[in-house]
Amino acid sequence: MKTPTIIALLHGPDQPGLVSRVSSWIFLRGSNIVHADQHEDPEAGIFFQRVEWIPSGQIDEEAASFEKFASEELSMKAKVAQSTDRPKVALFVSKTDHCFHDTILRFRSGEMTGELTCIISNHETLAEDAERYGLPFHHVPVSKGNKAEAEAAQLKLVQEHVADLIVMARYMQVLSDDFMNKVGCPVINIHHSFLPAFAGGKPYHQAHLRGVKLIGATAHYATADLDEGPIIHQDVTRINHRNAIPDLIRKGRDLEKSVFAQAIRLHLDNRILVYNNRTVVFD
Amino acid sequence: MKTPTIIALLHGPDQPGLVSRVSSWIFLRGSNIVHADQHEDPEAGIFFQRVEWIPSGQIDEEAASFEKFASEELSMKAKVAQSTDRPKVALFVSKTDHCFHDTILRFRSGEMTGELTCIISNHETLAEDAERYGLPFHHVPVSKGNKAEAEAAQLKLVQEHVADLIVMARYMQVLSDDFMNKVGCPVINIHHSFLPAFAGGKPYHQAHLRGVKLIGATAHYATADLDEGPIIHQDVTRINHRNAIPDLIRKGRDLEKSVFAQAIRLHLDNRILVYNNRTVVFD
Amino acid sequence: MKTPTIIALLHGPDQPGLVSRVSSWIFLRGSNIVHADQHEDPEAGIFFQRVEWIPSGQIDEEAASFEKFASEELSMKAKVAQSTDRPKVALFVSKTDHCFHDTILRFRSGEMTGELTCIISNHETLAEDAERYGLPFHHVPVSKGNKAEAEAAQLKLVQEHVADLIVMARYMQVLSDDFMNKVGCPVINIHHSFLPAFAGGKPYHQAHLRGVKLIGATAHYATADLDEGPIIHQDVTRINHRNAIPDLIRKGRDLEKSVFAQAIRLHLDNRILVYNNRTVVFD
Amino acid sequence: MKTPTIIALLHGPDQPGLVSRVSSWIFLRGSNIVHADQHEDPEAGIFFQRVEWIPSGQIDEEAASFEKFASEELSMKAKVAQSTDRPKVALFVSKTDHCFHDTILRFRSGEMTGELTCIISNHETLAEDAERYGLPFHHVPVSKGNKAEAEAAQLKLVQEHVADLIVMARYMQVLSDDFMNKVGCPVINIHHSFLPAFAGGKPYHQAHLRGVKLIGATAHYATADLDEGPIIHQDVTRINHRNAIPDLIRKGRDLEKSVFAQAIRLHLDNRILVYNNRTVVFD
Repeated sequence: MKTPTIIALLHGPDQPGLVSRVSSWIFLRGSNIVHADQHEDPEAGIFFQRVEWIPSGQIDEEAASFEKFASEELSMKAKVAQSTDRPKVALFVSKTDHCFHDTILRFRSGEMTGELTCIISNHETLAEDAERYGLPFHHVPVSKGNKAEAEAAQLKLVQEHVADLIVMARYMQVLSDDFMNKVGCPVINIHHSFLPAFAGGKPYHQAHLRGVKLIGATAHYATADLDEGPIIHQDVTRINHRNAIPDLIRKGRDLEKSVFAQAIRLHLDNRILVYNNRTVVFD
Repeated sequence: MKTPTIIALLHGPDQPGLVSRVSSWIFLRGSNIVHADQHEDPEAGIFFQRVEWIPSGQIDEEAASFEKFASEELSMKAKVAQSTDRPKVALFVSKTDHCFHDTILRFRSGEMTGELTCIISNHETLAEDAERYGLPFHHVPVSKGNKAEAEAAQLKLVQEHVADLIVMARYMQVLSDDFMNKVGCPVINIHHSFLPAFAGGKPYHQAHLRGVKLIGATAHYATADLDEGPIIHQDVTRINHRNAIPDLIRKGRDLEKSVFAQAIRLHLDNRILVYNNRTVVFD
Repeated sequence: MKTPTIIALLHGPDQPGLVSRVSSWIFLRGSNIVHADQHEDPEAGIFFQRVEWIPSGQIDEEAASFEKFASEELSMKAKVAQSTDRPKVALFVSKTDHCFHDTILRFRSGEMTGELTCIISNHETLAEDAERYGLPFHHVPVSKGNKAEAEAAQLKLVQEHVADLIVMARYMQVLSDDFMNKVGCPVINIHHSFLPAFAGGKPYHQAHLRGVKLIGATAHYATADLDEGPIIHQDVTRINHRNAIPDLIRKGRDLEKSVFAQAIRLHLDNRILVYNNRTVVFD
Repeated sequence: MKTPTIIALLHGPDQPGLVSRVSSWIFLRGSNIVHADQHEDPEAGIFFQRVEWIPSGQIDEEAASFEKFASEELSMKAKVAQSTDRPKVALFVSKTDHCFHDTILRFRSGEMTGELTCIISNHETLAEDAERYGLPFHHVPVSKGNKAEAEAAQLKLVQEHVADLIVMARYMQVLSDDFMNKVGCPVINIHHSFLPAFAGGKPYHQAHLRGVKLIGATAHYATADLDEGPIIHQDVTRINHRNAIPDLIRKGRDLEKSVFAQAIRLHLDNRILVYNNRTVVFD
């Protein structure tokens, strides 16, 4: 079994000596850095760091001390986690099941540093499959008339399950500004195109019409602006003139699964920092 | 040395028996098909075929007969070429030299089924290099005031060099509708993004600003609508947060070179058919 | 619903007029070719063709007639299938479950032109999961002492389930020459390296030791020579010095799933011809 | 113009506080780290670091002081370079010219942090092209009988040109143990397969015979054991049954160029550490 570690994600205005001050704080306590990665955006003047170490002292106390040090002495925003954390993840789905199965199986196999806590869907299609996996399934129908009530019900469920992250596995509804403001945890979405190309609905149809030679998938943090959030991960696959729209959809499924999974993994492993609608990904 | 072949590119309204009629015409003359590829677009009701064969008779006569057969008996548009053809290619450049060198060296190495006939540029930057390669270099300055005259001079040069194809190796000027209408030969352009994302100017700057995780390049036939022509080939490469704009430009150069070269090769090998602003590429 | 088609896979000594004779046979019956692809290996003097058409007559009779025509008049080996065929597939597994789930879910989603008929395993690990999917699970323990009996039991099961194809989803036992000779249907295996590199056991450990920068997966037809059979499909993914063996295993799982699935799909869609220990893949 | 930096590549037995001690040494002098990356191999117990900083004092003095600090106080092997260094590179070629042109053009374009100082070839084929580029060309014929003399002549040339690096751009001769022992600078070779597959001669022929679906290229440090040295970079491209050996050679050329260039760039940017016949590449 692996020795538990503390993982800190820091960012804030650049200033001389940050690498030294962080590493010395850790070293002087007798703790041992196992990974450290940093980045400076010279234009924005922002410093970013991910540092992971084996604590010498009691882990909760050392994590809390570091957080205080980072914010008070370095004036950096810090997210401090522990390698033994198992964040709770709520999975939003509609009817489409490929990302649903893929995500659940990855959590089951231990590939993800977290715990799937519930399934929330606007359709009952996947209820039986969720049950077979032993996962709570909540059906919250969404219609034109009940959007506000439905979102309120979703928020209540997310809170009851104490979700630390929402992942939308081809959940086909737009979340309102109001939902995004209230939800209080990050939301990762998978879009079935290489954004910014083919934002909005039916991207495979758009791709077919434009005659592109590559199709893609993009995982991003959801924001109030649809398909405009910070991009976490993207990938593409080659298509040709023989591929009709159903072929694009089939090929795209594999892309969507792997891109979505990679984004969730990077988030749960505390490898992503967001600024200026972009991401720094320490992979 | 390879036996000379006839290559026909056909397209037109789909009708029963086209594969049979084409192959039988060839077989009954005692000629021998070496490659054949076909495609039907069921929505558009169009049939496409590329067929290559070793003629039994005199090659020019057989090529001409087939063209007559295709248009008169099959009512298909046919482009009939010979494997020994060496189409003349005019290379348009500005100051940027990576696609310039790459394209010239590929023609020199015999990798391309064609002949570079001249370099036309709006700057003198690459004149000396063109000379070293032994290629005619024509400097046609372009400014806001002289666009029409400059294009007239370019057209004259293209005609004098009897160019069958124009390739724009990062030629940084938009060609007018008038030029496109008069030029009388296809024009291939390389755009430094995965179109339709980041059309227009400074695509690497756009990509950096949006925070994408992939950059791309797209080779397409130029049309009067900038960056809207039929896409021939695309590719992408992975970038990360450490890559500033100069890194994107450097990484992009390799993409641009290989995507541009592949598009030129496919065209010269008579592998591309265009319809509805898309391409069928028989590769 | 799609119109049923006949699909013929032909190969044999090259001879003039094969494309014409095949297409004319179809045309003259009033049937309509929807796809045709052919290939000649000039060194080996062998012709390969995949042709798919909508029959004008009764489909079984037309398929049988074509098979007779191909073998008797063209002296070609022909496999003639119908698009409505649902070949039966037996899935061999051990304890590892990623290819197991992935394969089953792809069959369930309708992505595969065939039917999973049973699971055969040398361990009971996946029995419960198989049951949840509603699939017959047969546990055939294999040990040093009982290999011959175990293989006899496996053969019996394969025959009882009338399997047309065996797919080994990380089945960790070598099949004997005797098994391969008796089985009477193709066997597809997934190997977790880019063969011929790292054949044999523990390829990820071999890859780590050699310090390669890419890991791969290879789907191939199993033959009596382990890891030496005809390669159907391969893919790779990038790794770096930070990736320890567990990372290679995790990254490799995604490769194995997609490469294995693509090979099974190509086989079931009648797109593969084998000769000289290589494959012609009409994709 | 960029501010000059010092770049240190360190490696040695892991010990607590290395990150802290290195960064504090830099910080306490008032210098400013712009990049830092580190890696520990827990099995081997080795620590690796690349750190780049803007010196506060006189750059040569600060670089020398750091080297002393690293070796004497940290007991680490250190290579300390400056961003303004322009290492001298000797290019070995035979007759094949694609990597030759590509490498020279990349140096000319300023893409490489170094200076091409001479061309050494066992054939005169590329003499004229070298001259056009304004590069000294040395013809050292190699035959069965004169290998020792030829290598002595090559060594003399390498020393006269004070080369810091030799790059073999498809130089088709094996260098002897004796040469490798005496040369005193690293040698980068490009092999036209995804090693360890298809080591030795005619890898494209081997690939064709085995029927692989991917071909590759591998850049590695040359060692006395042919094709067995530490791998720096690898890439692959997809092929199919239509690709005869000349197609593999053509497709492979593009791979070889880009893989070779990437390896040279990584080396010149001081991003590579070698241990246990593997590389740590801080890219």
